[in-house]
Amino acid sequence: MSKGPIEFYFEFGSPYGYFAAQEIDALGEEFGRDVIWKPFMLGTAFKETGTKPFMDVPLKGPYAVSDWERMGKYTKTPWKLPEKFPAAILAPGRGFYWLMHQGKSLSAKKFAKAAYKAYFADNRPMWTNEETADVAAECGIDREEFLQAVQSPEIKALLIEEGQAAIERGVFGSPFIIVDDEKFWGWDRLPMVRDWLKNGKW
Amino acid sequence: MSKGPIEFYFEFGSPYGYFAAQEIDALGEEFGRDVIWKPFMLGTAFKETGTKPFMDVPLKGPYAVSDWERMGKYTKTPWKLPEKFPAAILAPGRGFYWLMHQGKSLSAKKFAKAAYKAYFADNRPMWTNEETADVAAECGIDREEFLQAVQSPEIKALLIEEGQAAIERGVFGSPFIIVDDEKFWGWDRLPMVRDWLKNGKW
Repeated sequence: MSKGPIEFYFEFGSPYGYFAAQEIDALGEEFGRDVIWKPFMLGTAFKETGTKPFMDVPLKGPYAVSDWERMGKYTKTPWKLPEKFPAAILAPGRGFYWLMHQGKSLSAKKFAKAAYKAYFADNRPMWTNEETADVAAECGIDREEFLQAVQSPEIKALLIEEGQAAIERGVFGSPFIIVDDEKFWGWDRLPMVRDWLKNGKW
Repeated sequence: MSKGPIEFYFEFGSPYGYFAAQEIDALGEEFGRDVIWKPFMLGTAFKETGTKPFMDVPLKGPYAVSDWERMGKYTKTPWKLPEKFPAAILAPGRGFYWLMHQGKSLSAKKFAKAAYKAYFADNRPMWTNEETADVAAECGIDREEFLQAVQSPEIKALLIEEGQAAIERGVFGSPFIIVDDEKFWGWDRLPMVRDWLKNGKW
């Protein structure tokens, strides 16, 4: 069995991505696999698939809201529907790739978890650069450097490129997990990912 | 804890409904709950939510095809993508409610399982009344009566009414499970349904 990494694609504005983010590293550790976090902008994939955000869809919207609420309890993860949702959560993805670009992958992952929690548990306005820089600073990252980075055209382009690369790999939702080239869409598929890691191809 | 039934909503043309149909009765039995099968036409719900069938969506289509393939192996369920898919699979739902209408719920469930298998494992043209009547006959149901029933306006109306009632309850996908008024969308949520049945509200 190959021991390649687990690629964890997610969008910073995605509740199901947030829930998966609580479990994915433990899964990698259990089976001796690296987990590569890959934030991307789901909006680009949605344009490709003609998908609308849950909240804008009749029937699905109310279902999703109560689903996230119970999932918080079910998975024992702090959860509070943000006041502004959905929202374009861009600075966290930009900041993440800026850190990765400097080889600071541990710091990037720590920041990603903090950014997710800030938005989906603590109702902080993560669609702003300023608040995101605050969260970065709380993770020990230089606030001013971070603020400058997330506004630079190079870093903005980096997030867009990662999103394009994700679509080219077939990613269309959040979370989306690829391991040994096998694709898994959705938090609900974590048990199947586990089975794959344990027993390999079905 | 209340011991109300498990309502199992599904569409006869839905692969994920087919996979859930293999497990739902055992789940009910394990926890002493009746399982009420409720076929409906997903197309009506799709109109409500503006959803397209998987197959027609870029990225999602190819993912779904390979997902069903592996799910057959993962769940040890016979699977073969039908030559004509998606298709309007109407006669099985009509026949099902005709049987239910006569109080033949055991026969209806047996037929439903046979109809699902005929389409998703044996590649039989279940979009035709004739083939569906053959499957009914194999389940010990009078072929001619069945054939007449599925073409009657009353029975056709019954399936439409059930679909409307499903939407009014908030059903928008297949499979869709309601137990104690709690809603679960998708085959992937069966473990959560089990947890609900075992431990109740989170």
